[in-house]
Amino acid sequence: MELTHIEQLGANAKAVAPTLASASPMLKNSALAAIADALTNRASEIMEANQTDLANAVENHMSQAMQDRLLLNETRIKDIADSVRKLITLDEVVGKVDEGFVRPNGLQIRKTRVPLGVIGIIFESRPNVTVDAATLCMKAGNCVILRGGKEAFSSNLCLTGIMRDAVASVGLPADIIQLVQDTSRESSNQLMKLSRYLDVLIPRGGAGLINAVAENATVPVIRTGTGNCHVFVDESADLAMAVNIVNNGKTQRPSVCNAVESVLIHRAVAQQFLPMMKAKLDEHQVALHGDDDTRSILGECVLSANEDDYAAEYLDYQLAVKIVDSIDEAIAHIARYGTNHSECIVTKSLENAERFQREVDAAAVYVNASTRFTDGGEFGFGAEIGISTQKLHARGPMGLAELTSVKYLINGDGQIR
Amino acid sequence: MELTHIEQLGANAKAVAPTLASASPMLKNSALAAIADALTNRASEIMEANQTDLANAVENHMSQAMQDRLLLNETRIKDIADSVRKLITLDEVVGKVDEGFVRPNGLQIRKTRVPLGVIGIIFESRPNVTVDAATLCMKAGNCVILRGGKEAFSSNLCLTGIMRDAVASVGLPADIIQLVQDTSRESSNQLMKLSRYLDVLIPRGGAGLINAVAENATVPVIRTGTGNCHVFVDESADLAMAVNIVNNGKTQRPSVCNAVESVLIHRAVAQQFLPMMKAKLDEHQVALHGDDDTRSILGECVLSANEDDYAAEYLDYQLAVKIVDSIDEAIAHIARYGTNHSECIVTKSLENAERFQREVDAAAVYVNASTRFTDGGEFGFGAEIGISTQKLHARGPMGLAELTSVKYLINGDGQIR
Repeated sequence: MELTHIEQLGANAKAVAPTLASASPMLKNSALAAIADALTNRASEIMEANQTDLANAVENHMSQAMQDRLLLNETRIKDIADSVRKLITLDEVVGKVDEGFVRPNGLQIRKTRVPLGVIGIIFESRPNVTVDAATLCMKAGNCVILRGGKEAFSSNLCLTGIMRDAVASVGLPADIIQLVQDTSRESSNQLMKLSRYLDVLIPRGGAGLINAVAENATVPVIRTGTGNCHVFVDESADLAMAVNIVNNGKTQRPSVCNAVESVLIHRAVAQQFLPMMKAKLDEHQVALHGDDDTRSILGECVLSANEDDYAAEYLDYQLAVKIVDSIDEAIAHIARYGTNHSECIVTKSLENAERFQREVDAAAVYVNASTRFTDGGEFGFGAEIGISTQKLHARGPMGLAELTSVKYLINGDGQIR
Repeated sequence: MELTHIEQLGANAKAVAPTLASASPMLKNSALAAIADALTNRASEIMEANQTDLANAVENHMSQAMQDRLLLNETRIKDIADSVRKLITLDEVVGKVDEGFVRPNGLQIRKTRVPLGVIGIIFESRPNVTVDAATLCMKAGNCVILRGGKEAFSSNLCLTGIMRDAVASVGLPADIIQLVQDTSRESSNQLMKLSRYLDVLIPRGGAGLINAVAENATVPVIRTGTGNCHVFVDESADLAMAVNIVNNGKTQRPSVCNAVESVLIHRAVAQQFLPMMKAKLDEHQVALHGDDDTRSILGECVLSANEDDYAAEYLDYQLAVKIVDSIDEAIAHIARYGTNHSECIVTKSLENAERFQREVDAAAVYVNASTRFTDGGEFGFGAEIGISTQKLHARGPMGLAELTSVKYLINGDGQIR
């Protein structure tokens, strides 16, 4: 029976996975260096391919913001290459012994890190994901099958070709990195069902993409990225600190998943806090969507918030605001509207800090710090493939360790039961 | 909109999950003690309920082996209660700090263990699973929704009722343990799609059940238990040791997933080893299915092996046998027919031992020891919910830690990016 294009990619990856899994750290690092060099040396090819995508974008009346996401210029290509070089400096994770112990019968058991195998990545328009994802997976010993968006196909094809050449130049099989050549919805659906060949599927993109993958995939999925993050300003909060944390979470980079989307304010400090917060956020022209109490303090310049506002991941200079009567109400609100990503309390109360961290169900729960720190780099992981908002396998920023599984190695001298 | 029975169970579990998640270790242990006591005190009720199932089994001409799986007598009930008491002695896992570190900006980050939330268990005829699974999940802070087989419904209903009473008697919500009251295929299908309420689904049973769940579930699944385990007798093997390891793997308890199903023998030692192995296995009337080379050594008493034999998980006194020319052929055979569970090499060669452990892709890879040790108890985990044969989240025996997720707690004093 003839294999479909997607099945063929799966079979190719499966065939070379053992070679990559047992490749030495040095060989993998040589491949990374070759990729970084090739990206720099062949930058003009990349920009030429990118021009095709950009021309299509203009023709299709893509928004300026989306066009900017697509763009690859020399600076951006250099940044991508630098990220690859940074991976070389990270400690090898494959073969790491997480635990080792001896049983009473003398069996020696080691729990060691092994690659997951073959990872599928479904992503949208940013072509830098192509290189970031492929090289991070490779460093952890995994083959990748990349399925990028139609808008960036020409760029992705060029970048993948360059990586495959570089990998082959150091003696590793090119098929450890493959791009799906078909950007139809059907190819994406096929990839989601490729459980025979794929060990895990990681969607990177907006909530729509992630939900579609989670609903339809038979391959195990790691959900990443949707973040409706809250800051709760408790009655004992240092209000100046709270203003900084809200402002940083909202305005430092509004388009990312760890940006703040809603602020909950204890009624006891609302009168004092809201004008301070508004003054700061006005510097960035943040539009506020508030409940009636907020509007009665700040006035009609605050838009009236509805259910949708509290559920929204704006990813923009917009912020939902609500006054609450207690930490209980804040925790209940977050349980109802949150996406289990990053949540923050600003407080001086030890009891409330501990309670918030215990009861709020999220990957990262902050006391007196910006939610913007939920990030592999900021956590010191050196790199990240995304931020998991599910509980299985990985939660929070996923670095190299989260791209591996374990294998128990047991050595004996004839033990039987 | 009215909830279906399954959705109602999901909503009930979700409602009480936070209470259980923040219950103290002492309270959870009190609940376990109350369950163990109640099982002993109400043994006659349990046996009466079990009689209903057994009477149905006889009426439906169920096999003796299956009837034996169903049976609950005083000894078995005592064993179940003892397993519950053993959980009390295990260290608390919820709240455990896996890692803690400080970032250059002073942020203190702790990676702590939290419950997964709500776990669905789909299982077949053994009613002891009802108690084992519910109590292990509870110890790790998780609510369970149990969906047992129709054959054991009366027993499961009684056992679940007793556990719910016991849990309530110490002040925890009874709904942390719930049984699906509908044993139709439809209820099982609904449970597989209950992603709104369920955090993970663990099927416990035969390959048919596990594959059906993995294919149909939208809830994340942990695959457990299918084991086509091999022993490879290398040319340098201590042959007496190899006989013991094969015999133990095959005959000590043939019905379990870590039992040996196939033996691969290096050609250089086949002539000497096969008669030794056969003499030992004859004591247990093990039927051998061999390739032509094996049959030419041992004679016609060995059945002719076909593809199905090499792929079979016999779970019986049957064994597939094949002579191979090299460790390469052995590793390739295991890659083709194995189920990534437990694999063993018997060898004196350091090189071959290391190569086998590196290249064989399985949860547990043994050198010179029986595959029967792949077990939470034997690994020293104190208890296990099953043996994962997948790579995501957990691999190998799953104890309390594998029934938890992580949560990052980050404490600062106003840090922003």
